[in-house]
Amino acid sequence: MIIVLKPNATEEQAKEILSRIESAGLKPLYMPGVERIVLGALGDERVLQQLHLDAYPCVENVKPILTKYKMVSREVQAHDTVVRFGNAAVGGNKFAVIAGPCSVESEAQLMAVAEVVKQHGAVALRGGAYKPRTSPYDFQGMGVEGLKLLHKANQQLGLPTVSEVMEVGQVDTMCEYVDCLQIGARNMQNYALLKAVGESKKPVLLKRGLSATIEELLLAAEYIYDAGNPNIILCERGIRTYETATRNTLDLNAVAYLKQRTHLPVVVDPSHGTGVRELVIPLSRAAAAVGADGIIVESHLNPCEALSDGHQALTGPMFEQLMQELKPFVEAAGRTL
Amino acid sequence: MIIVLKPNATEEQAKEILSRIESAGLKPLYMPGVERIVLGALGDERVLQQLHLDAYPCVENVKPILTKYKMVSREVQAHDTVVRFGNAAVGGNKFAVIAGPCSVESEAQLMAVAEVVKQHGAVALRGGAYKPRTSPYDFQGMGVEGLKLLHKANQQLGLPTVSEVMEVGQVDTMCEYVDCLQIGARNMQNYALLKAVGESKKPVLLKRGLSATIEELLLAAEYIYDAGNPNIILCERGIRTYETATRNTLDLNAVAYLKQRTHLPVVVDPSHGTGVRELVIPLSRAAAAVGADGIIVESHLNPCEALSDGHQALTGPMFEQLMQELKPFVEAAGRTL
Amino acid sequence: MIIVLKPNATEEQAKEILSRIESAGLKPLYMPGVERIVLGALGDERVLQQLHLDAYPCVENVKPILTKYKMVSREVQAHDTVVRFGNAAVGGNKFAVIAGPCSVESEAQLMAVAEVVKQHGAVALRGGAYKPRTSPYDFQGMGVEGLKLLHKANQQLGLPTVSEVMEVGQVDTMCEYVDCLQIGARNMQNYALLKAVGESKKPVLLKRGLSATIEELLLAAEYIYDAGNPNIILCERGIRTYETATRNTLDLNAVAYLKQRTHLPVVVDPSHGTGVRELVIPLSRAAAAVGADGIIVESHLNPCEALSDGHQALTGPMFEQLMQELKPFVEAAGRTL
Amino acid sequence: MIIVLKPNATEEQAKEILSRIESAGLKPLYMPGVERIVLGALGDERVLQQLHLDAYPCVENVKPILTKYKMVSREVQAHDTVVRFGNAAVGGNKFAVIAGPCSVESEAQLMAVAEVVKQHGAVALRGGAYKPRTSPYDFQGMGVEGLKLLHKANQQLGLPTVSEVMEVGQVDTMCEYVDCLQIGARNMQNYALLKAVGESKKPVLLKRGLSATIEELLLAAEYIYDAGNPNIILCERGIRTYETATRNTLDLNAVAYLKQRTHLPVVVDPSHGTGVRELVIPLSRAAAAVGADGIIVESHLNPCEALSDGHQALTGPMFEQLMQELKPFVEAAGRTL
Repeated sequence: MIIVLKPNATEEQAKEILSRIESAGLKPLYMPGVERIVLGALGDERVLQQLHLDAYPCVENVKPILTKYKMVSREVQAHDTVVRFGNAAVGGNKFAVIAGPCSVESEAQLMAVAEVVKQHGAVALRGGAYKPRTSPYDFQGMGVEGLKLLHKANQQLGLPTVSEVMEVGQVDTMCEYVDCLQIGARNMQNYALLKAVGESKKPVLLKRGLSATIEELLLAAEYIYDAGNPNIILCERGIRTYETATRNTLDLNAVAYLKQRTHLPVVVDPSHGTGVRELVIPLSRAAAAVGADGIIVESHLNPCEALSDGHQALTGPMFEQLMQELKPFVEAAGRTL
Repeated sequence: MIIVLKPNATEEQAKEILSRIESAGLKPLYMPGVERIVLGALGDERVLQQLHLDAYPCVENVKPILTKYKMVSREVQAHDTVVRFGNAAVGGNKFAVIAGPCSVESEAQLMAVAEVVKQHGAVALRGGAYKPRTSPYDFQGMGVEGLKLLHKANQQLGLPTVSEVMEVGQVDTMCEYVDCLQIGARNMQNYALLKAVGESKKPVLLKRGLSATIEELLLAAEYIYDAGNPNIILCERGIRTYETATRNTLDLNAVAYLKQRTHLPVVVDPSHGTGVRELVIPLSRAAAAVGADGIIVESHLNPCEALSDGHQALTGPMFEQLMQELKPFVEAAGRTL
Repeated sequence: MIIVLKPNATEEQAKEILSRIESAGLKPLYMPGVERIVLGALGDERVLQQLHLDAYPCVENVKPILTKYKMVSREVQAHDTVVRFGNAAVGGNKFAVIAGPCSVESEAQLMAVAEVVKQHGAVALRGGAYKPRTSPYDFQGMGVEGLKLLHKANQQLGLPTVSEVMEVGQVDTMCEYVDCLQIGARNMQNYALLKAVGESKKPVLLKRGLSATIEELLLAAEYIYDAGNPNIILCERGIRTYETATRNTLDLNAVAYLKQRTHLPVVVDPSHGTGVRELVIPLSRAAAAVGADGIIVESHLNPCEALSDGHQALTGPMFEQLMQELKPFVEAAGRTL
Repeated sequence: MIIVLKPNATEEQAKEILSRIESAGLKPLYMPGVERIVLGALGDERVLQQLHLDAYPCVENVKPILTKYKMVSREVQAHDTVVRFGNAAVGGNKFAVIAGPCSVESEAQLMAVAEVVKQHGAVALRGGAYKPRTSPYDFQGMGVEGLKLLHKANQQLGLPTVSEVMEVGQVDTMCEYVDCLQIGARNMQNYALLKAVGESKKPVLLKRGLSATIEELLLAAEYIYDAGNPNIILCERGIRTYETATRNTLDLNAVAYLKQRTHLPVVVDPSHGTGVRELVIPLSRAAAAVGADGIIVESHLNPCEALSDGHQALTGPMFEQLMQELKPFVEAAGRTL
């Protein structure tokens, strides 16, 4: 950790901080410059952060050297983690396509789309039973009835399921009915929920928050890991920027960056990442090319009747086209579909 | 609602949508232009949103005319709402200063700072017992022991308290010990929590999410209102932008805009809004000038020992200076301190 | 164009605006709703924008129906434009790789890297002679001497050149020595410069501004087109967001979106788009997969000695690796390298 | 400067960098940590930046200690700079109000509004003769005829003028007719233009770029200063964020921050900063409260007829109201109006 003092800071003030660093069991460094005094502290930065040296009035700023996340880092585990649920595996040689409707709306709707996506190669079924909606007047999901339908779909088709959990009180019920718990973008920093899914040990698909940094995403994963659950799939789903032509800005830089820094698998959500049906296929191709371990994509056999996000859902024929177009890119990336 | 069709859309496709609008009990409008067909739908847009017309492949985009929020709007209630808890009132003639430490750390720490802020004119005491922290390795708060200390501080000093609630399971306990429930920025779209505090009827201080639009903030308030609780204080606390010199970008445009659109009181958090101790006083002055109903500010008698956010906390003398500097600006705004 | 009036607007005010629309030769529409009066104006929106209806106090907002750009749109020209300079073509079946150093630094440096990139398949050479630098104390480029070296490189290797023009006064000299004029991100809305390169008729590589919307990029291209020059290559080079792990956020959504809306070719700059050498190859692969017409990439045989942007430059062996890795993705996209 | 090496960096690699630091005449520091080797370099960082140490493959990142700007910093000059043009002074005890139309449209329009703003206390007249417009089809300004009208207004009313210069070729003509040259947001990093206005020695009003950091704004000012012109007024005019309710997000944090770091005067543009007429007055009050040295505001006697930006222009009566409302806040800030 590097501590830069203000221009008018005195040697005495520097010494006070240095002795505080030393008393915490770390090695202090004194670097008097021409325009500034700079201090260093060598050792475990997680201890140093407890010192809150940035609170000293004579401190201009504190520059950490190490990242705050640890267990999810490649420095702790060099090889890739593969997360398995049902007969799906994310993070291995197979590029995993998870597909299904935004919301579970009825048995007929769910079964029909589940069959189509399975037929064309999806390895898991997505579908929301509890829906986080910006407005209280929007459709809020079928709740536990939706979960039961997902369970039924899995039993009939052998397609493991992913569904969003919105609060601590839902975790147990969710674990009963679905195979992988999704933490939505709005809940990425809902720490009580992170701890709860961490304790559940169920595989977790953790979506990046709307304006979360890559480091914050990794720290959210670290919460789950720290609570005892290493089965974490990270999901890039677009970030909020000034651009309004697309719903979000899909950050594929983040995918390549994450693959270098963490051993956890990374999937991409091109449906929310673009918010535009016509852009889903090209961005899915790009996801495969950049090195993602899979995609999670919205599909609805009749988008005009969808109760949510119909504008970004792929129809059945479009889903088939997606899988055909993906194939050569997945193979170019050295994987199978 | 205005529906713009794609350039190649046919009259037939337009008619299908028009008949759907009509069957929903709304008045359809057909506007064939030179380059595009444009459709209109007059009536309650909240019904229209259920139609999901943007999911039609022939639709380029849908432009809503009305806002989605309703009960929190000045169109429904023209006069200002005043939210009262203990002997504090936010939204009236008095500019409300809520102050206290980021975290409750000990009885001695809390009582000492509470006395100082009360002496200089604070009307309520803030302090976190449950702390949302980016890293699992950071101090997570004293929990219920912290709540008890807040309660004690109120009993001894007559200073009502504001503290953050982080999950549904905490709401009942929080209601027992504190006077106003804070929803933090990370939880602004934690809808289960919004509903729970809505049902509790306790006054709520709702912070704007890190990258929430003004409309999303009002819709989050609408969730609480819709659940039966009109006692809502909105809080602008800075948004996330590309600028790194300050922790966040305090959006005072939003305060002026909100005061025109909603009857709910609006306070400003210059501590998180800037993240820099030296900027807290000038931005507090600006908050008073722009028309805010108060501020919520972090203060700690010994910031260098603070367990969180010491770098942005005002010392005792700085808090006194804040109140002195605020006075003429509050009066210029036609209020009292 | 749709004009939404404020809640308290009167019928009289509406009539005033309607008559203004009519007198401009457009067809006015009156749509009285339950909560708002909405007006429409059918016809050429470019005329309507001259009316500045949003300036009326009774107007809440104005929603344009049509885009402001026209000549660069696929609605005017459905087929792809191919931009040619020297023996390079951008926009056709061949995926164009433009490569070279950030800055021209010396004859030896330029020739060495030019030979390497040509050998491995680059179709054009990039290199800055005039450098826009954030600080006045940074290296500002070799100027006209740099241009002469680019010219020499082209003569010796048959590799056409791309270089940045920073001001109107440089256009003539640039045209003499280089084959394609680059407009940098900081100058995307330097309208005098856009007009000047438009009048020059030279091929132009137009970079998206640091925080320019897609529509603003297309309007900047429209300036060049409108000045008489249809030879425009658009370049996505990353936008500024809150994320700091990468220098910029490469917006591949924009590439897919642009390919649908404009007939102009689109290339990607993964060097500036990431700012991290290790991310250049994966994002180049993604650019090919998303449908870009090529990439423009920085390469330097000895990045540690580079006078600018060495941290994002590919070494010779890395450039070779880039071309090898690109090949299957380019082919999967139905193109050749 | 602090240089953090990658986890797998060797001592040998560290030594190579240390010797490079030493050979540049600086003092190297070697700090081997548990997880990383960290290097330091003490001395003039502007020399260090020429070393481009971030280009070394073994370097993870480089953290500068000192800011890159120097001459505009309070560390070089502690006292406030006052910029004078005509009988206007910006940066002193008087809060400077600069007002006028977005565009000069005609003699009648300009004279009428100039008289009104002068009568109510404006110290300078703004008005655009060359207009940077997003679309080539929008009104581009009256050009030199507009400049002549500004000159005439100054002669008749004794009101010095501010007008935007858009390219190097206009600088001489502008200097002939107007008293203060405005660099617009889109040109903040048009370095050729910065150097040209620097050489002209005329007072410059430098607007912050749409997504420029505070440091980039100060470096743009440093360009002008470095070219020999210390007469620089900085202008905060709103930054681009994800929020769409307002045209830009006015960053008053930046104003308070700038006043602490630079001796240059800082004014606020609440017209572009909000883009909404109704928000101009509250944000002007906030600008005075936060410590700005003045405001630059758009006013038009008949906004509905304005050729540009009518939606954010104050009418005559609103301008009068602005001045009345400003007064107590300016006085609370210890200044006069």
